[in-house]
Amino acid sequence: MQGEREFRVTRVTPSGAEEFADILAVEEPLEIRVVFGPEVNRRSKSLSITMRTPGNDFELASGFLLSENIVRKPADIVSFEHVGPAEGESEHGNTLMVEFANDVPFETEKLQRHFYTTSSCGVCGKASMEAVRAQGIAPLDAGLSVDRHVIFELPAGLREQQSVFDRTGGLHAAGLADQSGAFVGIREDVGRHNAVDKLIGSQMLAKSFPLSDKILVVSGRASFELVQKAIMASIPMLVAVGAPSSLAVELAEEFNLTLIGFTSSKRFNIYSHGEAVMDN
Amino acid sequence: MQGEREFRVTRVTPSGAEEFADILAVEEPLEIRVVFGPEVNRRSKSLSITMRTPGNDFELASGFLLSENIVRKPADIVSFEHVGPAEGESEHGNTLMVEFANDVPFETEKLQRHFYTTSSCGVCGKASMEAVRAQGIAPLDAGLSVDRHVIFELPAGLREQQSVFDRTGGLHAAGLADQSGAFVGIREDVGRHNAVDKLIGSQMLAKSFPLSDKILVVSGRASFELVQKAIMASIPMLVAVGAPSSLAVELAEEFNLTLIGFTSSKRFNIYSHGEAVMDN
Repeated sequence: MQGEREFRVTRVTPSGAEEFADILAVEEPLEIRVVFGPEVNRRSKSLSITMRTPGNDFELASGFLLSENIVRKPADIVSFEHVGPAEGESEHGNTLMVEFANDVPFETEKLQRHFYTTSSCGVCGKASMEAVRAQGIAPLDAGLSVDRHVIFELPAGLREQQSVFDRTGGLHAAGLADQSGAFVGIREDVGRHNAVDKLIGSQMLAKSFPLSDKILVVSGRASFELVQKAIMASIPMLVAVGAPSSLAVELAEEFNLTLIGFTSSKRFNIYSHGEAVMDN
Repeated sequence: MQGEREFRVTRVTPSGAEEFADILAVEEPLEIRVVFGPEVNRRSKSLSITMRTPGNDFELASGFLLSENIVRKPADIVSFEHVGPAEGESEHGNTLMVEFANDVPFETEKLQRHFYTTSSCGVCGKASMEAVRAQGIAPLDAGLSVDRHVIFELPAGLREQQSVFDRTGGLHAAGLADQSGAFVGIREDVGRHNAVDKLIGSQMLAKSFPLSDKILVVSGRASFELVQKAIMASIPMLVAVGAPSSLAVELAEEFNLTLIGFTSSKRFNIYSHGEAVMDN
């Protein structure tokens, strides 16, 4: 598989050591470059370089661009192209050119630090939230209602869906489930933000938006950035197997997102907007 | 504590729900700005904004700057100062000014992408490794030798040392142990890279370099960037509780770092330079 590579490894136990072939998750850099502007003045700019597991790069770029509020709909992107020399066993270059439609407004100077700073209070948690607000994103619609027994089953459902995780143990997973707990998509990556970007990007490319009746399930912790990604994709519920951070809870509270953490088959904690969880 | 905040939470179980006060890890942005240049031409530049758990910011900045090969020794930094308005319960601003000594060479254009790209092959895993090589860092000295029974005990030792983790469940830990398995330092953060930067920075500020007889122990996975941080701090062994990535193993192999993963009291896997592990 593209996201895996075999290595010779020595396993050590108290009683001895043995060599075996282990499967590891591949980690390689991806540069996202965008081509933008009106037809008379097309330009190109490098947006980011991130370490990721190769595969689903179009989805990764789409989800990232949506999370950053740079694109809003599938038609904003007219083409993807991998460029650059091939590396090792990967089938294509590690630079991805993303071509925007002529009418996509794109201001390169707006990109810098726009999620963390405002002119009023500098760099602070409050500024990070104000910056999300300044994107013009409305609080999520209330209306999703999920049975708590469905939530107890989500971590096991995510693990079942994971194809690579069981072989390498090195990948984070993000899944999208409906109100009955059925998974409609799952993606994995060495980076947990990337896994969510790939998942949201896959739904965008499949024109499956809006996601306002879906649940985002993540195998790790819930950070500010993951809550922000859910909000930008209009997903009203985030269920994490791990702990949330303080700022994740504060952002979820403000934008009507139901944030659930420490989720297992026997318990979970509701950190915001528990009205979406049914008692049945 | 500075790194924690209390929230009202609803715990749901199959049989009911109850409210309680939960302690969460604080996550807030930190901007690192540097002041540099000869006396006749002092300048300032914003280097990075990262989400981190407040506390040990001087150490975080020191470890980050060392990992990026911007400073090499304690004397390269002459002062730290928090600026900007206070936010919520934190005691200081979230912008940290780091003043370099006059003679620290600092080229702002060298910063951009220097770890992921080279002119010869663009963006690729090989380029990432070449970029580390281009920093002029020699492969680590052989010579560290650790009993395997010491390694079996490191994850439990790290957990014992964790002060905040037990209360929030939301923090990554990084610890530094000697050859007998005794921990000489530990740091925690919502970001696993930050935990390692804080730990390495704390050793640098305490003038405890070189670290060539120490073991870096991390609670999560071993990525390319964590191996790179160990190499830049001359730490010859990295022991991870989780899985390594492909590029982490390749970088460790080249720079003579002993990389160990999936570590527990009953087994671990050696991915590179197993000659440092003793059979006793």
